[in-house]
Amino acid sequence: MLKELKERVLAANLELPRQGLVKYTWGNVSARDAATGLVVIKPSGVSYDIMKAEDMVVMDMAGKVVEGSLRPSSDAPTHLEMYRAFPEIGGIVHTHSPEATAWAQAGMDVPLYGTTHADHFAGAIPCARPLSAREINGAYEKNTGLVMIETIRERGINVLHIPAMLCRSHGAFSWGKDVENAVMNAVVLEEVARLARWTRQINPAVPPAAEELRDKHFCRKHSKNAYYGQQTNKQG
Amino acid sequence: MLKELKERVLAANLELPRQGLVKYTWGNVSARDAATGLVVIKPSGVSYDIMKAEDMVVMDMAGKVVEGSLRPSSDAPTHLEMYRAFPEIGGIVHTHSPEATAWAQAGMDVPLYGTTHADHFAGAIPCARPLSAREINGAYEKNTGLVMIETIRERGINVLHIPAMLCRSHGAFSWGKDVENAVMNAVVLEEVARLARWTRQINPAVPPAAEELRDKHFCRKHSKNAYYGQQTNKQG
Amino acid sequence: MLKELKERVLAANLELPRQGLVKYTWGNVSARDAATGLVVIKPSGVSYDIMKAEDMVVMDMAGKVVEGSLRPSSDAPTHLEMYRAFPEIGGIVHTHSPEATAWAQAGMDVPLYGTTHADHFAGAIPCARPLSAREINGAYEKNTGLVMIETIRERGINVLHIPAMLCRSHGAFSWGKDVENAVMNAVVLEEVARLARWTRQINPAVPPAAEELRDKHFCRKHSKNAYYGQQTNKQG
Amino acid sequence: MLKELKERVLAANLELPRQGLVKYTWGNVSARDAATGLVVIKPSGVSYDIMKAEDMVVMDMAGKVVEGSLRPSSDAPTHLEMYRAFPEIGGIVHTHSPEATAWAQAGMDVPLYGTTHADHFAGAIPCARPLSAREINGAYEKNTGLVMIETIRERGINVLHIPAMLCRSHGAFSWGKDVENAVMNAVVLEEVARLARWTRQINPAVPPAAEELRDKHFCRKHSKNAYYGQQTNKQG
Repeated sequence: MLKELKERVLAANLELPRQGLVKYTWGNVSARDAATGLVVIKPSGVSYDIMKAEDMVVMDMAGKVVEGSLRPSSDAPTHLEMYRAFPEIGGIVHTHSPEATAWAQAGMDVPLYGTTHADHFAGAIPCARPLSAREINGAYEKNTGLVMIETIRERGINVLHIPAMLCRSHGAFSWGKDVENAVMNAVVLEEVARLARWTRQINPAVPPAAEELRDKHFCRKHSKNAYYGQQTNKQG
Repeated sequence: MLKELKERVLAANLELPRQGLVKYTWGNVSARDAATGLVVIKPSGVSYDIMKAEDMVVMDMAGKVVEGSLRPSSDAPTHLEMYRAFPEIGGIVHTHSPEATAWAQAGMDVPLYGTTHADHFAGAIPCARPLSAREINGAYEKNTGLVMIETIRERGINVLHIPAMLCRSHGAFSWGKDVENAVMNAVVLEEVARLARWTRQINPAVPPAAEELRDKHFCRKHSKNAYYGQQTNKQG
Repeated sequence: MLKELKERVLAANLELPRQGLVKYTWGNVSARDAATGLVVIKPSGVSYDIMKAEDMVVMDMAGKVVEGSLRPSSDAPTHLEMYRAFPEIGGIVHTHSPEATAWAQAGMDVPLYGTTHADHFAGAIPCARPLSAREINGAYEKNTGLVMIETIRERGINVLHIPAMLCRSHGAFSWGKDVENAVMNAVVLEEVARLARWTRQINPAVPPAAEELRDKHFCRKHSKNAYYGQQTNKQG
Repeated sequence: MLKELKERVLAANLELPRQGLVKYTWGNVSARDAATGLVVIKPSGVSYDIMKAEDMVVMDMAGKVVEGSLRPSSDAPTHLEMYRAFPEIGGIVHTHSPEATAWAQAGMDVPLYGTTHADHFAGAIPCARPLSAREINGAYEKNTGLVMIETIRERGINVLHIPAMLCRSHGAFSWGKDVENAVMNAVVLEEVARLARWTRQINPAVPPAAEELRDKHFCRKHSKNAYYGQQTNKQG
């Protein structure tokens, strides 16, 4: 079942080491099938070298494995919480990509310092609060998702306008309308996190970019009046 | 029409990801045909993997597309302002190359700290002032060009002596007598921006290099008494 | 003798430049044969390009070469001290990998700032004290091992829970239950050292990650209740 | 004439971009023929892609071209001053390699922070004083060499023990008993400059490594009692 979506999830997983975002078996990608609501996710701890499309695990929204002989990624409960909270999300990526992870470890949002950021994210990349000891020792992966959702709700974020988050002392999640979009957001997150680190190194006192510039660039690519790209391919 | 120039503009665009200066469809290159005054530019949002010479868009100096079925780069109005203001420019490159962009986001000129810089640029790489809200919400891309021109005029810059600029909170433009020269200036800009970041990291108080050293190195390669390279290839 | 282990030690040595951890002939790897207690180690100063499995040197635990025509790595006495002190160690890697070496030169532990670190090391990576002049001018390589052992004992470290150490003003050692595990720990050490440098650059005041998070992640992969990976491959 | 030495000088030049030390036609390498005292050097401004062994220029010690149809590197007078002052030097490399150049632009010696440095250089890498306006406007390239020689003499440096120098606001020179050794010293200089930048970033107050450690490591590889490597290949 979901043969094509498994191929896409495999391709998305393999793109992560190619883009320098993961080492070894770190990182995981999932996608939700719009028709059935089933989620396809990478198996836990399988080497990227030997991973095949049929190794992808199919779960229902309750986390029950409905197809696949391998364990799903240990982070599956985090993915499922996000899918449940936000029906508009079709794909999720988790990495410890180094630039984003450095900001997560520093416990700070990635400020919006320029148009590279604004072309893809409509504001700062939020860093979620630390989990409490109780949240860590309880259903840790599920609680990781709940803390992300809490952050999104408290800040009034549109998840498709700021499709990424830093998990404190941990790493990054990104998402999108589909799995390919989620991977692109992971790549861009890493790039803007790097730019932001270097920007502050050069000028620690620099303020975020002007709101007008942020809105101009985000809307140039993402609003109904977008004029970037060709008409059939506005997000390309 | 302009078949050879389209091939050169395509090659110049493809050189950008190869040199690590752009990701995805970020960045764009144009060239002006000396004989006709027409400008050849990359189409907007087309993947570098599938871009072909015949996809290049030909515009007149008023921005009217005279050949090509795709939309030109959304930054085309910026390129056109620069060509109109400076007849000596034959090629323009725009990137969000990370080292240059970090300085643009920091809102600071890249100081001339040494001879690598002086071999190619006769002074600091200027960072243009931020656009006003009115300039952003109006003809944004055209105004981006006008602010660059304003910076060049106010500082009394010879555009072929300092063939690059940082756009505040945005990225970099470079140019040259032809499109290959503009690409080389984009590559060197990225390198000198990196050197400058590291130089300040090691010694935050270091002053710019001596003016005599700057002039010596720039003239060694670029004056009529240049003695770098072979006689048939002074810029090589 | 020990033909298969020599192949594994060769492969482990060749993995080091491939992972960007060593240049030229820097770095060395050894493995201990569980059955005989013999140690297989890289020869000194032989180029990685031409090194063959039969060039690996076999020593007994007293450091006597029992097979091989080449000199063993000049760091062999350090390896032997570690094997003697800790029977649970089956493989050792020494590198001057740049991120780890920067911390060793800075004379500081690599703090545990996040889960990437905690997934592999149960606490900060210790930086050993400097050797005294007497220790340097005496049996230097043997004393390097003794100072590592002193650090492990004084801090009450379980060597398989924190399988790496920084040698002050020098470089890094990592180890593991076998030689492949020791190499993986060298790769992860380099990554967490890089993350820690960047984390402090962004937020110099950031404290280490919460102990609960550290324990959760280390145990998720390494305890008898581990639930990361597939059941046959808990460490994968 | 000197066919084999030309091949070696070509190979040394080509090694520079492969090691990430030069871009475009930046950088140059020369070697001195022990028998004749003639110097073989890279031609000026020729692309590495098309450079051939027969393009190498042969000069006598007075700088007169005795073979070759191309101009020698514009830095040839610097090389010649060094060869004249130090008969023990057989090869010289000049680069703007980024880590070394950042220290040169910062106007600071690269401190000896650890054994990677001490394995190859017996002390800090000196940064020469700036040239005066008169020295720049006069015989600039010759004066660049004279200032290096002045630095070596004033500091009492053995040129084969510290075979590299930073030219203020400029770049790096390295040398060795032969041209291959000079290239290796350029590669190691870049690595130790990088390590030193990171070391200071982590711990700005860290002092240089202990003198005993420096002497131990330098002598382990370079003294008549060296015990690193195989007996036929002490420097390998």
